[in-house]
Amino acid sequence: MATSFDKVVATRRSIRVYDRREVSDSVVREILDLARHAPTSMNGQACCFLVIRDPATKRRLAEIKNLHSPPEKRSYPADYLADAPVIVAVCVERARSFGREPENGILATAFLLLAATSRGLSGVYLSATQRDDPELTASIRDLLHIPAGIDPITLVPLGYPGAEPPAKTLRPLEEIIRYEFFDRELRSRN
Amino acid sequence: MATSFDKVVATRRSIRVYDRREVSDSVVREILDLARHAPTSMNGQACCFLVIRDPATKRRLAEIKNLHSPPEKRSYPADYLADAPVIVAVCVERARSFGREPENGILATAFLLLAATSRGLSGVYLSATQRDDPELTASIRDLLHIPAGIDPITLVPLGYPGAEPPAKTLRPLEEIIRYEFFDRELRSRN
Repeated sequence: MATSFDKVVATRRSIRVYDRREVSDSVVREILDLARHAPTSMNGQACCFLVIRDPATKRRLAEIKNLHSPPEKRSYPADYLADAPVIVAVCVERARSFGREPENGILATAFLLLAATSRGLSGVYLSATQRDDPELTASIRDLLHIPAGIDPITLVPLGYPGAEPPAKTLRPLEEIIRYEFFDRELRSRN
Repeated sequence: MATSFDKVVATRRSIRVYDRREVSDSVVREILDLARHAPTSMNGQACCFLVIRDPATKRRLAEIKNLHSPPEKRSYPADYLADAPVIVAVCVERARSFGREPENGILATAFLLLAATSRGLSGVYLSATQRDDPELTASIRDLLHIPAGIDPITLVPLGYPGAEPPAKTLRPLEEIIRYEFFDRELRSRN
C-alpha cells in the first residue's frame, strides 16, 4: 500500500456510521500488524488485541459504555459500537508494561486508528477505563474474559465509513505552539 | 511529502543519539501541524506544544527525568535530552480535555513521533508524568513556566538520527491477537 503518510493523518476522522461492507480478517490483521509497531515502555511490547465480531458482545459493549458514560458525554451515546462490523479491544499485559499500561495501550491505539484510515476504514477512540469508575473496566473484563494480568485500555470500532464526517476546523498552529517557556508570548521564529 | 504510511510506521524507532544537523523551525512546524490532527476527547482540541531549544533548559530536563526515574529504568538515563537539537513538550489544556488529559496528550505524541519519522527525524517518547511521583510533573511545570490549567504529558526529543538503531524483533501477530474472548485459544479465521 502506498498512501502517503500526510494524507492518512489529514483524512483520519472519527466515524460513527458504518457501511454494511464486510471487514475481512486479512485487513484487520494488516491494521494490527501496523499497530504493534507503536513504541512501548522499555520495549516491553505489552500490547495485545482482541478482535470482536459477535453481535451480542458488541451490543453488550455499547450498553456498558453507555451505562458508564459521564453526564457531560451523554450526548454521544456509544450505540454505534453495536453496528460496527468489528471492534478491537486494545489490551496491555501488566508484566510487560513497566507501570505504563495506559501509555502503551493508547500509543498502539493511535497507530491502529491511522492504520485503519490507510486501509479505507474508520474507527473511533473509546476508553475502556474511566477515572473514578473502575466498574467500566471491570464490566469489560468480565464480558470479554480478560484475565487478571491483562488490562483493557481502549475499544475501537472499525468499519468502512457509512457517512461523510461533518466539517472539522482545527485550531490554528499559532494558537497552540509556544517557544522555550509556556508563559512567554508567541513569537514567530521563521 | 509522499512517504508511504506503512514505511513510516515500519521505520519509526526510538533514537537516542542525534546528528549535529540543525532541525529547522519549519520542519518542527510541519511535524506539529500533523500532530494536531490527533483525535481528542469530544473534539476539545486540548493539545498545545512547547518547543524548546535552549541548552540550559534541555540539560535541566535531562536532570529532572534522571532524578525521577524509577529504579528499574535507571539503565536508560535521559542524558540524551540535553543533546537533542529540539525538545517538544506535549501539553494539554485541562478545560478542553473532558477528564482525558493523558489520552489527549499521548495520542498527539504518537502522531508527533510518526510525523517526525516522515521528515527523517527521530524522537523518543518520554513521560512528563509518573504515577506516585507528582514531583516529576511539578518540576517540569516549574522549569517551563507551565500555567496551572495546562498539564505537561510527554517530552519528545527530536533530531536527525546519529546512530543506527539496534535490530528490533516484534512479537509475532499470532502471539498478540485473540478472537471474541480473551481466554479462548487463538484460532486462525482465514
